[in-house]
Amino acid sequence: DDQTTTTYDIELIPGDGIGPEVVDAALPLIRAVADDHGLAFDITRRDWGTEYYLEQGEMMPEDGVSRLADSDAIFLGAVGHPTVPDHVTLHGLLLPIRKGLDQYICKRPNVLFEGIETPLQGYDAGDIDFVVYRENTEGEYADIGGREHRGFNHETAVQSALFTREGTERIVRAAFEAATERDGHLTSVTKSNAQAHSMVFWDDIVEEVSEDYPSVTVERLLVDAASMDLIRRPHEFDIIVASNLFGDILTDIGAQITGSMGLAPSGNIHPGDENPSMFEPVHGSAPDIVGDGVANPLATVLSWSMLLEDVGEKTAATALWDAVTNQLADGAAPRTPDLGGDATTEAVVDDLRSRL
Amino acid sequence: DDQTTTTYDIELIPGDGIGPEVVDAALPLIRAVADDHGLAFDITRRDWGTEYYLEQGEMMPEDGVSRLADSDAIFLGAVGHPTVPDHVTLHGLLLPIRKGLDQYICKRPNVLFEGIETPLQGYDAGDIDFVVYRENTEGEYADIGGREHRGFNHETAVQSALFTREGTERIVRAAFEAATERDGHLTSVTKSNAQAHSMVFWDDIVEEVSEDYPSVTVERLLVDAASMDLIRRPHEFDIIVASNLFGDILTDIGAQITGSMGLAPSGNIHPGDENPSMFEPVHGSAPDIVGDGVANPLATVLSWSMLLEDVGEKTAATALWDAVTNQLADGAAPRTPDLGGDATTEAVVDDLRSRL
Ligand SMILES: CC(C)[C@H](C(=O)O)[C@@H](O)C(=O)O
Ligand SMILES: CC(C)[C@H](C(=O)O)[C@@H](O)C(=O)O
Repeated sequence: DDQTTTTYDIELIPGDGIGPEVVDAALPLIRAVADDHGLAFDITRRDWGTEYYLEQGEMMPEDGVSRLADSDAIFLGAVGHPTVPDHVTLHGLLLPIRKGLDQYICKRPNVLFEGIETPLQGYDAGDIDFVVYRENTEGEYADIGGREHRGFNHETAVQSALFTREGTERIVRAAFEAATERDGHLTSVTKSNAQAHSMVFWDDIVEEVSEDYPSVTVERLLVDAASMDLIRRPHEFDIIVASNLFGDILTDIGAQITGSMGLAPSGNIHPGDENPSMFEPVHGSAPDIVGDGVANPLATVLSWSMLLEDVGEKTAATALWDAVTNQLADGAAPRTPDLGGDATTEAVVDDLRSRL
Repeated sequence: DDQTTTTYDIELIPGDGIGPEVVDAALPLIRAVADDHGLAFDITRRDWGTEYYLEQGEMMPEDGVSRLADSDAIFLGAVGHPTVPDHVTLHGLLLPIRKGLDQYICKRPNVLFEGIETPLQGYDAGDIDFVVYRENTEGEYADIGGREHRGFNHETAVQSALFTREGTERIVRAAFEAATERDGHLTSVTKSNAQAHSMVFWDDIVEEVSEDYPSVTVERLLVDAASMDLIRRPHEFDIIVASNLFGDILTDIGAQITGSMGLAPSGNIHPGDENPSMFEPVHGSAPDIVGDGVANPLATVLSWSMLLEDVGEKTAATALWDAVTNQLADGAAPRTPDLGGDATTEAVVDDLRSRL
């Protein structure tokens, strides 16, 4: 046999709640796809997250981010716990990784798959298909601000959003690049009318970068109008570029109008080889269904597909993506409860394997 | 005749685009309702806005805000112009009035009327009925920030959101009050997991104020989840309280899921007699249909209803609101194009008069 095997070093953080369930259920499928395409994954498992925190007082070891840095890619299940505040779980794990590894693109495809019902009237499979490029390291999530005069009448809190030229230019450029590879239509979402310090700067950068992409049509929307338009005319979007906060809101609306949070994959991407990118389902840790074995694994599987595409394994990525598309289109296939079925996580994954 | 007439001093700013069209069309109806209820309006018309700006270099006179200050209420049509940047038109008129007259509550009802189709599947008239209490003077719209190193690689923009105890407490308290008069359910929307400086402060204030309203159930949602939930389960909301930016986004989603921007009224309210409140349709100046005579006047009429309620004329307010409800429920009644009809603004208002 003269097949060579390419091996990828993967850091796996199953995390909290249903994270480990979906991650572990998906692994045999992922290994099977790898086998089929002459690939192998060398997986290092990191049991970081809230359990780790409750024992160690921190969500991951102090040098956690640097331990991840040499891998080819990172896969994260979910983070969050009912009894530990979100700002602890997130600022202790998810956000430091995004920032520390400079994963400045949060890429989130929003696709209405065949077989999936949208809450919107009059939309069919294929009608909704756009990708959000969300800035992922600065903007409204910058850890700048404070709170003074606690408990007094003049108590005041300030939260500052930070936009740098490099930080803004590179996400805008990545979005323009993506638009040239799709339908050539880019929507930039801001709130320039009310946030003139930051958002007019963003608009100026979009204007500048657009000169390098004359074939891309550029549309500007205010975030309030964009939120409406995702409900009113989602079929008209192709690539959306937005700040950290606005991208967060728009991608959640995107997940909702395409039928389920259980289907939404995402990548936190640092382009190039310097740092690994991290892939994760958009859904959270879903404490209410932990242990029931019915968490939807599809967002995890689609996120693995994005990972494979990102490391250059396009064929394997497509095989995984197509298995999901195929399963969803098949009315007889097993589905988890969030999609109206009563199948287990495992049954869904087994069925996907049979479709490879 | 021993009827006494109560006269209200109203400042009327028709503004830009379709603003004057809907405001002028609605006036005879408003006067008719006033007549019916022993009221009169003493209206001072202010031709401020973009035309004024193009002649005078400012959107309103320098002492504009103080000229409005002694009235009983202000009515605004719309602001915005295709050739003048939004941050000029808004920072020159709308926002200074909201801030200068300390109209700290932006109150926006979202109702799915009978006869109106929502873009969401499975919702009927009456299913959606919630009110957003949006903070209207500070938060993410504070004019704090700047931009340095223009054109250089290290160019940086900062936009700071400001939350004061007074500013936060009073909007939260107003929302709790409103909840006690409705279904006793309050949803507070933040992004505390990623914006810990400002939003944890907001959460703390909600917690404090909630102690005075033990009968109100409080739900906390992150803005991304709330945006989804307005699509997924809009029927479960009663009162929503949110910051300036989040309230802006949520009310636009609210207008969309209740069928039309053309139906959404709003009040910028300063409770008490010290300053007048300002009422305005949520829609903009709609440059694309200016002069066609087909702008939807219903958001304007509903905003007048809110004005009447605010000055204490509940019966007159209800008469106006009911005329609209009545017209929308009547399949044979005239409708403007945005609601699928081909009637003119005037025909719609005439029909409303016949329903008083
Ligand atoms: C958990 C939270 C900080 C996170 C975010 O807003 O980035 C999540 O909502 C997401 O979209 O990945
Ligand atoms: C025009 C703009 C500044 C305004 C706002 O965001 O307040 C508008 O969107 C609104 O909601 O009244």
